Amino acid sequence: MKRREFIKKAGVAGVATAAAASAFPSPAISQGRKQWIAVSAFGKAGLLGQALNEFAAFVKSVSGGKFTIKVYHAGELVKPFEALDAVQSGTAQMGYGAPYYWAGKSDSISFVAAMPYGLTAQEQNAWAYFGGGIEQADKLAYNPLGLKFLPMGNTGNQMGGWYNKPINTVADLKGLKFRMPGLGGEILKSFGVNVVLLPGSEVLPALTSGAIDGTEWIGPAADMGKGLYKVVKNYYYPGWHEPATILDGFFDLKQWEKLDSEQKDIITRGSAATNLFILSKFQAINNSALQKLINTHKISMNKYSDELINAIGARATEVIPKIASKSADAKALYNHIVKFRSTMVDWSNFSEANYLQARGAANFKAI
Amino acid sequence: MKRREFIKKAGVAGVATAAAASAFPSPAISQGRKQWIAVSAFGKAGLLGQALNEFAAFVKSVSGGKFTIKVYHAGELVKPFEALDAVQSGTAQMGYGAPYYWAGKSDSISFVAAMPYGLTAQEQNAWAYFGGGIEQADKLAYNPLGLKFLPMGNTGNQMGGWYNKPINTVADLKGLKFRMPGLGGEILKSFGVNVVLLPGSEVLPALTSGAIDGTEWIGPAADMGKGLYKVVKNYYYPGWHEPATILDGFFDLKQWEKLDSEQKDIITRGSAATNLFILSKFQAINNSALQKLINTHKISMNKYSDELINAIGARATEVIPKIASKSADAKALYNHIVKFRSTMVDWSNFSEANYLQARGAANFKAI
Repeated sequence: MKRREFIKKAGVAGVATAAAASAFPSPAISQGRKQWIAVSAFGKAGLLGQALNEFAAFVKSVSGGKFTIKVYHAGELVKPFEALDAVQSGTAQMGYGAPYYWAGKSDSISFVAAMPYGLTAQEQNAWAYFGGGIEQADKLAYNPLGLKFLPMGNTGNQMGGWYNKPINTVADLKGLKFRMPGLGGEILKSFGVNVVLLPGSEVLPALTSGAIDGTEWIGPAADMGKGLYKVVKNYYYPGWHEPATILDGFFDLKQWEKLDSEQKDIITRGSAATNLFILSKFQAINNSALQKLINTHKISMNKYSDELINAIGARATEVIPKIASKSADAKALYNHIVKFRSTMVDWSNFSEANYLQARGAANFKAI
Repeated sequence: MKRREFIKKAGVAGVATAAAASAFPSPAISQGRKQWIAVSAFGKAGLLGQALNEFAAFVKSVSGGKFTIKVYHAGELVKPFEALDAVQSGTAQMGYGAPYYWAGKSDSISFVAAMPYGLTAQEQNAWAYFGGGIEQADKLAYNPLGLKFLPMGNTGNQMGGWYNKPINTVADLKGLKFRMPGLGGEILKSFGVNVVLLPGSEVLPALTSGAIDGTEWIGPAADMGKGLYKVVKNYYYPGWHEPATILDGFFDLKQWEKLDSEQKDIITRGSAATNLFILSKFQAINNSALQKLINTHKISMNKYSDELINAIGARATEVIPKIASKSADAKALYNHIVKFRSTMVDWSNFSEANYLQARGAANFKAI
């Protein structure tokens, strides 16, 4: 609804309308109503669909109904992986997904999502908001696509994946048919893994038919929902390939620049809250799913051997820089993240890593 | 400024005013302007003062200037620890601090801030937003004081503190004069530590004069700013006493209930974003401070011995339940947090703890 229609529908006519229009010079009203369309790569039903709906409801609420975002979840307007195209073409003004979904459009954009052996969720947020991360992601990945980026969710540390047999040595990797997208998959390829890329809907069928020997997905809650435990029982940790994955809100850059400061504030803080809520929800639900997988579905929790962690880690430092060398933007973004990572490692080790080890010394009981 | 004054100042008179008033039935305008006062326990200069200013600026911006919060930092209107009194007495409508600052008012409220060997920052956020934490804190701590609570910042994992000599065994604790407020201090007392409570401004003088043998403060960035390294060099980790500390935004409950849904949305999401921003900023600045403490100021990084971590952890499970038994509210809140903690430990160990150990296998270099 445009401002003119709003005034008309409010039932005011003639001179009173003119007086009213001039009497309230508030920017929100004088600039009229803004109606955006958002397209998501995620389904309506899951927690990400719900979080996007709540974000849109927030925008509508705090703008007094003057800024609305009509949400189309995956498949409702365009296919999941067409969300970025839809924003570029002007069909939508906002999109939602994970940066590595758009790797076909940009050599650098996957680095925004996650890097094997890279930053944790807490470190990614430090990078994004106070380490120049949003600015660098815009400059080196999103702006060249005509887009503006904001972090809008995080999966936290993912699980290492599901295997149809125990995997202990580098030799065990050779010839394995494994689904792992992104940079992690590129590293596994270098060990002779037959890396398979499959959309989410085809993962369980491929595992069931034996077309793949294993797959990584997300974490306990999402993996349990997908039913992977029904076919294979060897569940590996930790998720070295995606220590945390940023989800991206992205906006038509020209439309973003047309927003006034109030509207930008709504989107910026609103998306930051969504970022925190999604990470918090994943954290809250993963443990109960894990307990159910272990106790009810009798899966086997396997820690990646030191041999594998060390060999894959060393290989990551060869493969990833090679991938980053594909373009100047990818190289610059890789360098920015690697530099930030080097400033995080010591503090996270002294604090979080040591604390998590120490905590086991106390076993509190309800009173 | 009240709505009537606003209309008057907008320069509209007589019948046109009446028409205008009825023509725009938007809740934001029809309910007029709201002006709140906020009082903080933190100084203006630090990152917490800045974050509160930015929160108030956000509220003003997205409300189109119709909801303003005038911020008074520590000492500007009332003394730091009088912030809660100021809200209870109606001098202010909002306060900002750390829950354990108000321990004199409530037996349960310290549990909202932190618990020795308790939740990490990511787990606290999961507890607050998706584990019923905000609801329980309101019911058992804030509502009985006539207040509404929202998390509005987190320090992340703190450091264990500064000592004038190495501390390796339980015997080393006996007779030590150490500053540690809250539940951690209560545990140390049980080992014969002479626990001293001092306001922040007196910590460095007391350390310098030898009135205390050591102190905990926050983390590398804040500790360096305080100059503690100038007097003592033994810096201990991890911060078992405050694995993470929630900062609290609190509101006059009657004023909160008078807010419309738009105003509540502004405060709720605005404070969640502040929560994330503060944790992210602490994470971003702690490592460079740590490097400077180690390399320039030549401090000694000491890990608490297994003997101490285990003995203190075991004692925590005796002392804290005893403190929680002081009132029904404290007991209920302790039980709620302990139950949530038991649902977090496994997942955080499999994911974050194992990942942080594995990460050292990759040493990325700029290209």
